[in-house]
Parts: sequence; structure tokens; C-alpha cells
Amino acid sequence: MKDIVERIRAGQFKAANLRRELADMNIIDLGEVFEGLTKEETIQIFRLLPKDVAANVFAHIIPKKQQIIVEALTDIEVGKIVENLFVDDAVDFIEEMPANVVNRVLSQVGEEKRAIINQLLQYPDDSVGSIMTTEYLALREDFTVLEAFDKIREIKLMGLHTCYVVRRDKLFVGSVSLKTLLLAKEHERVGDIMQPSLISAKTLDDQETATRLFHKYDLLSLPVVDKEGRLVGIITVDDAVEIVEEEATEDFEKMAAIGPTGTPYLKTSILRHVKSRVGWLMVLMLLAIGTELIIGTFEEAMAALPALAAFIPMLMDAGGNAGTQTSTLIIRGMALDEILFKDFYKVWWREFRVAILCGLILSIVNAVRVLVFNPDQLLITISVSLTLMAVVILAKTLGCLLPMAAKKLRLDPATLAAPIIKTIADAMALTMFFLIAQAMLPELR
Amino acid sequence: MKDIVERIRAGQFKAANLRRELADMNIIDLGEVFEGLTKEETIQIFRLLPKDVAANVFAHIIPKKQQIIVEALTDIEVGKIVENLFVDDAVDFIEEMPANVVNRVLSQVGEEKRAIINQLLQYPDDSVGSIMTTEYLALREDFTVLEAFDKIREIKLMGLHTCYVVRRDKLFVGSVSLKTLLLAKEHERVGDIMQPSLISAKTLDDQETATRLFHKYDLLSLPVVDKEGRLVGIITVDDAVEIVEEEATEDFEKMAAIGPTGTPYLKTSILRHVKSRVGWLMVLMLLAIGTELIIGTFEEAMAALPALAAFIPMLMDAGGNAGTQTSTLIIRGMALDEILFKDFYKVWWREFRVAILCGLILSIVNAVRVLVFNPDQLLITISVSLTLMAVVILAKTLGCLLPMAAKKLRLDPATLAAPIIKTIADAMALTMFFLIAQAMLPELR
Repeated sequence: MKDIVERIRAGQFKAANLRRELADMNIIDLGEVFEGLTKEETIQIFRLLPKDVAANVFAHIIPKKQQIIVEALTDIEVGKIVENLFVDDAVDFIEEMPANVVNRVLSQVGEEKRAIINQLLQYPDDSVGSIMTTEYLALREDFTVLEAFDKIREIKLMGLHTCYVVRRDKLFVGSVSLKTLLLAKEHERVGDIMQPSLISAKTLDDQETATRLFHKYDLLSLPVVDKEGRLVGIITVDDAVEIVEEEATEDFEKMAAIGPTGTPYLKTSILRHVKSRVGWLMVLMLLAIGTELIIGTFEEAMAALPALAAFIPMLMDAGGNAGTQTSTLIIRGMALDEILFKDFYKVWWREFRVAILCGLILSIVNAVRVLVFNPDQLLITISVSLTLMAVVILAKTLGCLLPMAAKKLRLDPATLAAPIIKTIADAMALTMFFLIAQAMLPELR
Repeated sequence: MKDIVERIRAGQFKAANLRRELADMNIIDLGEVFEGLTKEETIQIFRLLPKDVAANVFAHIIPKKQQIIVEALTDIEVGKIVENLFVDDAVDFIEEMPANVVNRVLSQVGEEKRAIINQLLQYPDDSVGSIMTTEYLALREDFTVLEAFDKIREIKLMGLHTCYVVRRDKLFVGSVSLKTLLLAKEHERVGDIMQPSLISAKTLDDQETATRLFHKYDLLSLPVVDKEGRLVGIITVDDAVEIVEEEATEDFEKMAAIGPTGTPYLKTSILRHVKSRVGWLMVLMLLAIGTELIIGTFEEAMAALPALAAFIPMLMDAGGNAGTQTSTLIIRGMALDEILFKDFYKVWWREFRVAILCGLILSIVNAVRVLVFNPDQLLITISVSLTLMAVVILAKTLGCLLPMAAKKLRLDPATLAAPIIKTIADAMALTMFFLIAQAMLPELR
């Protein structure tokens, strides 16, 4: 692909040859070529594209270059492209354009398509309606197979695999695959050979609901119905996959105390990066005042036995790491529906036993390590080991309690993940360490 | 679904009614019903399933129950089920069974299918070959459209949407959709109406290679070819989605210092949970000896100015959090191919500027907060602020350096994530803090 840009620049192409070469390329690779082009090249190359692929390539060009193209084309050319875009691609494109471009574009689109686009633009972000497309094939249940094939030949959809079946009043009743239609006799009724099915999402459902249905039922497309159960669109599996990936990315970011940016790393400005990160860093820094106060309270103990201080980082980290392990597993498990709220006691009891075993192993290894080098530090070592046990158990309890409580309160579990748990675990670790040490060590009494 | 189990137990069904109700259910929901059944119920209900759906339901039952069923059936019944399973489902099932069951199952399967299953069982884990299915539709390029439809009617595949086109020597040359075939004239040659395409994966490619192609080209299925470019199978999008989710889960776990378990949370035994977690906790605990030694080195400074100790947790956490933010963004960006190794300097320069801004804001807020309550701690505050700046910059540098270096060395970047970076950042934070404080504060000289 880079080749082609370099060869264009080197003037190696006659327009006719270049046009042929472009027409042979994969649409998506073609869209990527535009990323590296200058403004003039963008316009020049886009004009070389065969008319029938231009709209399709346009859908795969980055918004900045889409805008350059739209601004260079005549109103009639723009209208043609948008008319040929799939509705969901048209909506994606319009959402990225500044207001003046949007108005110009919409004024060039046929009335019917404009109405659909406007309707789709109104669905809330993250709703099923906002990601569905209205281009699908609906067959009436009283169609014969022959009529069904007429209808299939007539519509322009290429990626067709499942036909949805509706009643006369548009109520969604089932689906039928092209293969089934091919195997059926010409005069059979669609309603008789279809697979009755009620697997569908509603326009105002959260998009996650839709991705879960894809996951559970291995779907290639999911019918979308309105409140009355009438078919109004479909979601295709490629959109569902994209949402799954976006949501995983969001969870990764939340769990690392990063606010949403919504754009790929390299396409996000420095200030937006700072904005998405400094907030949480600040909150966590201020929460650390708690640990500061605790250390202040026990200043005398530290002064009396400076050796204690050396163990503080290790104890704090052990708590943070143990808590992070648990919260990560729980949050991911809930995101994949492998853990439900009703599993709370089961999960907690599991974590409790895991914590006891992990805590025990860590305490013993740590005690052996310390005593080998400092056999005289027996009491300190016992204090450290007891604290380590307690910290691991408490951190793992928090790691399962907080995300599940968040879920119950309809908050996002990922937000209450690692960093918060670590800060709370830090404070607990310090307090317990000093209390246990004061109880164990005569020097501190 | 639960209903049905309860109603079975309450004896509310006559066999004939139950059989009808089961036949109406979605295959995947039916598979889930078995999760809650006892051994006897499992066998009893499975025998009630209509013959034509039994194999399909069997593929969606958890391995434990599959085994119960296989052990209760006659050899001939087992043979029939496995013959009717899709090859990839058969392989998944066989991989989960103990050796004696595997032998019994394979001995009941026809020779041809057995050869294919054995072949698939030999592909390495995580290779494209191990997840592909050999059930696909290949049309020869010299077929007419009429011949193509004969072939399509003949094979039993239901989820068919794309037909792949091969030469006489099985070399993969392109694809053609059912829709295109429907629109074509009966005597056109498949080779003339197909979409030439070379998008395919090789059997021994890593499965991630395949999922990236799905992502990039919005595919519903991906052809798999052997070393010579001959078509040998396909991967379907539902398998690709599953791999994407598994890989995200693995990354979540690695970044939280958890070893692989490979099973869902609630299906993993306590000991396996402990095993997957205690190793990293141990490594990190032992790495913390570094911080212990550093604090030991500066024991005198701490004794001379105990107020210093109070700031240690905050400085350590700030470094850990700042580093985690960066490493998470980089690792996720690399997993999605949004960040490549060649972007290294671009990424580092971006992180450097983000770090300076974040560090500056945090230092100022912290300084104001401390000085409002303790106006006399000016020099300590300056030391803390300088350290904070330095720690944020260093942690963010590490957070981008380590994962990218890991990638370059062909290690998994996720393994060098948060916990390791935090531990290194801790040691750096402590060292810098004491050095800066010693330089700034006359008490420590």
C-alpha cells in the first residue's frame, strides 16, 4: 500500500493505469492509502476511483480526509456518495463532520434517506439504535419462496446472509437463511420454512445487551425491534465486535485510573491525554493523605524502632497486588457475564480461601528470608508476617466487595478497581502493621 | 430456561409434550439447561431430544455433562452424534475428554472424518489450524453458476454465506457471495463473477494473525490455506470473536500479575487460583527487598527528620499510578495494532510531555495543600514536589519503555506491565526522595 503512494509521487502512473490498479485493491486497504496523502493528492486520487466503489471507499477513510474530500466535491457529487453509503456509515460520517458540512451533506440527500439518517442521529450514544443499520432484508411471512427471491434480487445489499421475516404489520417473527430458501420449493410460504425466533434487541437497549446476544448465540446479525416489536433495523457482527473491543479498552483504562478519551492513543492530543489522567492521579494523591496521617500518628513507634519503616513498602505493595488480582478477575468475569451478583457469597468464600493460602505462603517465605539474615528480629518478623496475612485477606475481600457492590448500585465496577483498592489497602496495611507491632514488641509499649 | 428444569422435576411433563417443548427451544439455551441437571436427568433429557438436533445441542453442553452422556450411550449412538457434529465442535469435544472416552469415540467415527479430526488435533494450540473448521463450501472456478447451485444444495452446511473459489489444484483464488450467484446468469463461470482475493491465513499462523484480519476487513469467515496456498479450511467469525475476548482476558490477568488459568473464574479450583496468583505475589514481594534496602540506607535521615516518612506512601503510589496509566495505554494500543514499535519515539515524546504537565499539576496541588497546614515545612515541601515531578516523569518513561522493549524482544508486553513497573518506580521514588531531601535540607547534612 505504501508502495502505491510512493509510486504515485514518483509519477510512475498514467491516470488510466492507476485507476485500474486502484480498482483492483481491497476497499479497506484503499481507505488506508488516504491516511498518508496530502490534501491535493487526496482529492486527486479520490476522483480517480471508479464510481461504483467511491462511496464504499469513502466509508473507510479517516474523518479528516473525508472532510477534505467533501469540501472539494460539488454538491451533486456529495449527494451521490452519501446516497450510496450504507445508512450506518452515513451516520458515522455525519457525526464526525462540523455543522456546516453536515447541513450541506443532508441537503443533497433524498428525502427518505434524510429522514432515516435524522432518526438514527437521535438515538442516544451507546444505545442499540445508534449502532444499527436500517439496511436489511425483510420478507413477509406470506411471501412464496419465488417472491422471496424476486425481493432478494431487487435489493442492493451485498453482505446478505440472513433474511428476517415479518408479519404484514412489520412484527418480527423469525428468520430464514438463503440456503434454506434455495433448498425450498418455489411455492412454499416463507412463514412455513422460517426459523421462528425472538432473539432481538430493542432500539433503546444498551449496546452491551446486543453484544451479549451476539456472544451467546453466535450470531452474524441481530434484528432490532421497536417498542411494539416491529423490525426497524439490524446490527451486524462487525459492529458488535468493534463494541466488544471498545468496551474492553474502556475497562483497561478505567482499571488503570484513566478517564475516557474515546480516540486511539496516537490520535489523542497531549492536553486531552493530560485531562484524562491527571484527575485520577490527583484524587489518589489526595486519598494518600490518609496514609500520611496514619504514619504521623505512629511517629513515635517509628522513631523507637526505625527498622519497622523498611517493611512498609513491601506490605503496602503486597496488599495492592493481592487486591488488584481479585478485582481484575471479578470485573472481567462480570463483563463477560461469567460472574453474576447472585454469586457474591460463592465468590467471596472462594477469594477468602485463596487469600488464606496466598497469605500463608507469602508470610512463611518472608519470615524465612528475614530470619536467615537477621535471626534477632524474631518479634518484628512475626509482626510483619501477621500483618501480611491480614493485609492479603482484607485486600482480596475489598477486591471482590467493591466491584460487586458497584455493580449492584448500577455503577461501573471497573471504576472502583485497582487504584482505589490499593489506596484503601495501603491505609489498612499501615494501621494494622503499627497496631500489631505495638502489641508484639516491648520496645513500642 | 430454569422453568423447564423445575417443571421437569415437578413431573409436569408428559414425555411427548416435553419433547415438543425442547424441540422448540434455541439450541444454545437448550445446551445451558443441562448445566443444572443431575446425571440421571442429563441422560433422560438428552434421549428425549429429536435426532436431528441432538448433535447440535451436544456441541453446546459443558464437557462434564458431555462425558456423562457419552458414557451412557451405546457405541452406535455415540458414532452418530460425532458424525453429525461439525468438525471443529468434534475436535473441541474430544480435546476435553479422557483418553478412554476419546478412543471409544474415534473408533465409532467414519474413516474420513477420523482422519480430519486427527489432523486437526495435531495443530499446535493457538495456531490457526487448531481453530479452523474443514466444513466450508469450495466452488471450482470453472463451475457454471448452475453447477455451483447444485453443489450448494448438496452440502449440509446451514450457516453458509460466502463460497470460496479454488482452481482445479485446490489453490485458493477468491470468493463469491450467494447473492452474487443469485444475480448471475446460469451459464456464467464462477471464476468470472468471483471477487479475486488473497486475504487468508496459513494453518500454522498464530491465531492472533487471523483475528486481526477479521478486525481489519470486517470478515464473516476467513479462508485458511496450507503452505502451498491450497484451501484447507475456514475460520468463522464467532470463533474469532471468542479468541479476541480470550486474549483481552489474558491481558487483563497478566497486567494484574495473575498467571494463566484458562478457565472461567467460577470453574477454576481454589488450588489453581492460588497457583496462578501466588507466584507473581512472591516475585513482587521479593523485589520489594530493594525498597527495604534503600530505606535501610537512609535510616539516619529518617531518624533525623521523621516527617519525611509520612510522604513515602504518597510518592510511591503516584509513581505506580502514573506508570500504570502509561503502560496500560501502550499495551492495549499494541494489542489493537494502534501502536507499532516504529512509533516508539513518537510515543515516548508524547508521554514525556504528558508527564511534565501531570507532574507539574500534582506538585503544585500537593505543595499548596501541605503549606496551608504546615507553613514551616517549606524545604520539605519543595523536596516532595521535586521528587513528585521526577517520579511521574520516570514512571511514565518506564511505562512506555518496558512494554515496547518487551514487544521488540518478542516477549509479551502485558507481562512487563503495572506490577513490575510499580516496584521499580517505588525504588526510584525512594532513592530520589532521600537524595533530593539530603541536598535540600540542612538537618540531613
